[in-house]
Amino acid sequence: MFGKPLPTWDERAEELGTAAGIPIFGLDALSSAAYGPEAALTLLILLGAAGIAYIVPISVSIIVLLTIVYFSYRQTIAAYPGGGGSYTVASENLGPFAGLLAAAALMIDYILTVAVGISAGVGALVSAWPQLLPHTLLLCLLILVFITVINLRGLRQAGIVFMLPTYIFIGSLLATIAWGVFKSVLAGGHPVAVEMPPPAAAPVVAAASAWLLLQSFSSGCTAMTGVEAVSNGVRAFREPKVQTAQRTLTVIIALLIAMLGGIAYLVRAYHIAATDPGQAGYQSVLSMIVAAVAGRGPFYYVTIGSVLVVLCLSANTAFADFPRLCRAIAINGYLPDAFRLRGRRLVYSQGVYVLAILAALLLTIFGGVTNRLIPLYAVGAFLAFTLSQAGMVAHWRRVKDPRSGRYMFVNGMGAIATGITVLVVLVAKFVEGAWMTALLIPALVVLMLSVHRYFKRVAKELEYSHPLNVGGLQPPLVILPVQHWSRLAQKALQVALTISPDVQAVHVCTEGEDKELQAQWVELVEDPAKAAGFPDVKLVQLESPYRFVITPIVDHVLKVQQEHPERRIAVVIPEMIEHHWWHYFLENNRSELLKALLLLKGNQRIILVNVPWYLKT
Amino acid sequence: MFGKPLPTWDERAEELGTAAGIPIFGLDALSSAAYGPEAALTLLILLGAAGIAYIVPISVSIIVLLTIVYFSYRQTIAAYPGGGGSYTVASENLGPFAGLLAAAALMIDYILTVAVGISAGVGALVSAWPQLLPHTLLLCLLILVFITVINLRGLRQAGIVFMLPTYIFIGSLLATIAWGVFKSVLAGGHPVAVEMPPPAAAPVVAAASAWLLLQSFSSGCTAMTGVEAVSNGVRAFREPKVQTAQRTLTVIIALLIAMLGGIAYLVRAYHIAATDPGQAGYQSVLSMIVAAVAGRGPFYYVTIGSVLVVLCLSANTAFADFPRLCRAIAINGYLPDAFRLRGRRLVYSQGVYVLAILAALLLTIFGGVTNRLIPLYAVGAFLAFTLSQAGMVAHWRRVKDPRSGRYMFVNGMGAIATGITVLVVLVAKFVEGAWMTALLIPALVVLMLSVHRYFKRVAKELEYSHPLNVGGLQPPLVILPVQHWSRLAQKALQVALTISPDVQAVHVCTEGEDKELQAQWVELVEDPAKAAGFPDVKLVQLESPYRFVITPIVDHVLKVQQEHPERRIAVVIPEMIEHHWWHYFLENNRSELLKALLLLKGNQRIILVNVPWYLKT
Repeated sequence: MFGKPLPTWDERAEELGTAAGIPIFGLDALSSAAYGPEAALTLLILLGAAGIAYIVPISVSIIVLLTIVYFSYRQTIAAYPGGGGSYTVASENLGPFAGLLAAAALMIDYILTVAVGISAGVGALVSAWPQLLPHTLLLCLLILVFITVINLRGLRQAGIVFMLPTYIFIGSLLATIAWGVFKSVLAGGHPVAVEMPPPAAAPVVAAASAWLLLQSFSSGCTAMTGVEAVSNGVRAFREPKVQTAQRTLTVIIALLIAMLGGIAYLVRAYHIAATDPGQAGYQSVLSMIVAAVAGRGPFYYVTIGSVLVVLCLSANTAFADFPRLCRAIAINGYLPDAFRLRGRRLVYSQGVYVLAILAALLLTIFGGVTNRLIPLYAVGAFLAFTLSQAGMVAHWRRVKDPRSGRYMFVNGMGAIATGITVLVVLVAKFVEGAWMTALLIPALVVLMLSVHRYFKRVAKELEYSHPLNVGGLQPPLVILPVQHWSRLAQKALQVALTISPDVQAVHVCTEGEDKELQAQWVELVEDPAKAAGFPDVKLVQLESPYRFVITPIVDHVLKVQQEHPERRIAVVIPEMIEHHWWHYFLENNRSELLKALLLLKGNQRIILVNVPWYLKT
Repeated sequence: MFGKPLPTWDERAEELGTAAGIPIFGLDALSSAAYGPEAALTLLILLGAAGIAYIVPISVSIIVLLTIVYFSYRQTIAAYPGGGGSYTVASENLGPFAGLLAAAALMIDYILTVAVGISAGVGALVSAWPQLLPHTLLLCLLILVFITVINLRGLRQAGIVFMLPTYIFIGSLLATIAWGVFKSVLAGGHPVAVEMPPPAAAPVVAAASAWLLLQSFSSGCTAMTGVEAVSNGVRAFREPKVQTAQRTLTVIIALLIAMLGGIAYLVRAYHIAATDPGQAGYQSVLSMIVAAVAGRGPFYYVTIGSVLVVLCLSANTAFADFPRLCRAIAINGYLPDAFRLRGRRLVYSQGVYVLAILAALLLTIFGGVTNRLIPLYAVGAFLAFTLSQAGMVAHWRRVKDPRSGRYMFVNGMGAIATGITVLVVLVAKFVEGAWMTALLIPALVVLMLSVHRYFKRVAKELEYSHPLNVGGLQPPLVILPVQHWSRLAQKALQVALTISPDVQAVHVCTEGEDKELQAQWVELVEDPAKAAGFPDVKLVQLESPYRFVITPIVDHVLKVQQEHPERRIAVVIPEMIEHHWWHYFLENNRSELLKALLLLKGNQRIILVNVPWYLKT
């Protein structure tokens, strides 16, 4: 299902050129055009038909912000050819705490990228086929599973899978924009729609206010999410890595600006108002634009199909970046070791699993409706932008370069612009959901700090650089539970006799039965052992009025351990093994329970010896 | 939640008199009156208003059958004071195969008792409060969980919980019948209903045919399910056990006959037609009767409330009997050992769990609608009746008793009557669902035979009655995986050195790192060990191009094991333990995986030594 394992030396084959880099690292940024403008327009519903016009100044502000961020990230790519994600840049230049803050912001951002990408894709799907609307959440989760599997197979195949739909998406959207603008200009700015969009909801429930426009701008800022992806993944590009990555970033940003500008123009020209998200009659803004410009013919379905695929797969950016981020954090000891290890397909599988599970959780909580996820989204992304740019400012201050001053100015502009945006978004969206992000980010930071403290404590406790201490070693005192005399009991006893001269067998008496073992013990065990020169093997009887078999053994082991403070106690646990899954239901699994309980209640001086008996099949 | 553990000697306190025995062992039989007549009537819907009258001859046939079965079971109780369930009687008198057939039939019967009891109880509830109808399944499952918990606490408390509602149910239903019959006789057989029942669905879609009446009779036979409960549980009664049990059975059967007769009379007198089950507008027959006789006042709600409680708790009969049956089968070696062991509250907990899970499955599949479960029900119950009576015939043939002939005749009558009923029900209900029971019963028999074969094979393989063989014992060859030099590695090495003179450390090299261990090995381990008189401890390096850590170790162990065909191999597995659940997410759990994989791929000569390291908290 996930393909054959790849050896470590196969790694360099995963390197990308510009053409392959655009789908891999640009999907998130480009597909944001499909939900960012819509998110801004949805808030303008309250203003009725008059609200539509405000999309133009809002889109222009976002494009200006985007341009500033672009120049800022170009410099980051050049300065960090090994991969200059916000986490790396912030921790190296602003210290580990800022780094963790950036990391937490990015993790939230990536999870939301997955959730929003998929939910917006399904939004496109239900625009074309409204009868699917009731199954929104199910569709979201199915797509999530599909993407997860693709990503567990590894990046290279993923690139091939994603290239075609991305280029269809870019091509058809740009064609729609060009054709729509052309028709509009011909019609003197008042084009006639092929298919009329639904009219704006009649009742005007609010007047245009600065507050409402700020809210709309904050929602629209989600159109910028994902532009940092290229700078994180510079190492995945073909040589010369920096130039290839910068070229890729330039193309992505140019395409995104063209789309945002074109959408804003067409929304205004064709009077397209957003519809109520998650309600019957919902239709995505892109769907209305394409239907208005080109009608609901084959072109409409190809475009909407590519929007669906691209939006869903935009989640892939996060699936490429989230595990890398987790790995970087794990290398610094702030996340468990498992995130540092690549799976059998050279993918950091643990990160893929965690991302998939958290995104599924978010989708389920918010019912797969994009508009409910939007308020959580922009805070994380813009906080990471800000920390990254601020880190770059600190970087240029340290670096001795004649152009440092100019560079510092560009990154400083970026830091200030995105920093102000974080505050705007946080205030404007606080009640609607930004409070969750505002709580989750510090919670994540605290979590990572605790993990770090835990690992430092464990490492300190286990640290030992002296040579092996061999003083006072003596064999363990062996305790062997025996319920019946059988081949398995004999084998366990043989093992016990070979590893120590001190062996004690214990037998639990439940409901008065099984007294016969004691009667036979001397003849079956003690006499032959003595004859062969082994020391005494006594049988200890344990009474159990509550019919428990396991707890009396554990209690006895703990008692013996207290009576011999200088000895190690080895508990020999016989166990039957059969290579059939249904075997588990047939045996009473006492040995499994005994092992678990002894490990749980045990201590440094108790060790377990597991003697398996493989049943013939 | 389940109460404190009970010691074995507390067992006799669970003994019951007649008054307590009726709720415990009679609930299933008595509550059948609430769904049996309704099941028969539901089929008569097809005949329109004219169909109602047929309920009288059908009920009379069922009462005759019930009387025959009653006399038959009285004799069973006397002959089997230790508990004469169908399984015991059939296996002792007709051989183990007939016993297993009876056991399988009973197991299916018990599961359906639970499912039908709960679904019919919820049917009463939604009759009184129709707005609950859409939540039928959820209500069923909640009640199932409640009953399961009660039963895990043990029988004694259960008796107290069930006594009151049962007597309210019996009292109010008999009062309804007496009052209804009195009014009807006063009105010359044409009483006026206080609340008119809904009229029978107008279109008559079938003519009365022998086939339809047989189907209606077959459904009505479910009113007899549960009458065998007393004979299974004779041991639970107070001394003199046989007389107490027989008296209890007599009271239960007399009450049941009064109810079935009364219901049939009132249905006809008040012209009550069944409503479509599982559809909007559904109302149970009992609800319509009580509303017709007494109106929807407080008496109606008390009666319907007791019907709800009693029907739901009728499942308790199965919860008392199913685990006992499984225990009896397990003692004979046809079910896993776990069914034989009493839990901490003297309950055979395993059987309770299995019953609860299977009943939940049935309820979910059939949406909690009684009428869909009915076709599956009667086959199992009547097959068990038949095998039990037939077994008694064989029993009397063997026993030397002057009255054997008379006894044989009574049980023979029972066997023939119930045997014919099995065939009728099987044919009449085959398409609607009896085919499932007809498949499940032989499948269960095959399953139990396989379990028996498995246990016989295991017992034979492990059987060993000779004294301990101590020839040629030598210490195991110890293999110890070491990734880093630490206190834990040192402890594991100390344990290894004390249990065997042959110790080999292995180290897995992934991605070229960690070569330093080899460089330090001589100084850290070999020299001090040699100085203390221990033999050489060599470090073996294992290369791992696929970055796996665990499989190279397992492969190495298997290789060493093949190279030393005469030795046991002990693999020492160091493991960190911390008493916090979240610890599991922080460590990479390699030791757990290694243990599992070694047990899975290992063989008779490989044993595991688990050396835990308890982290300070």
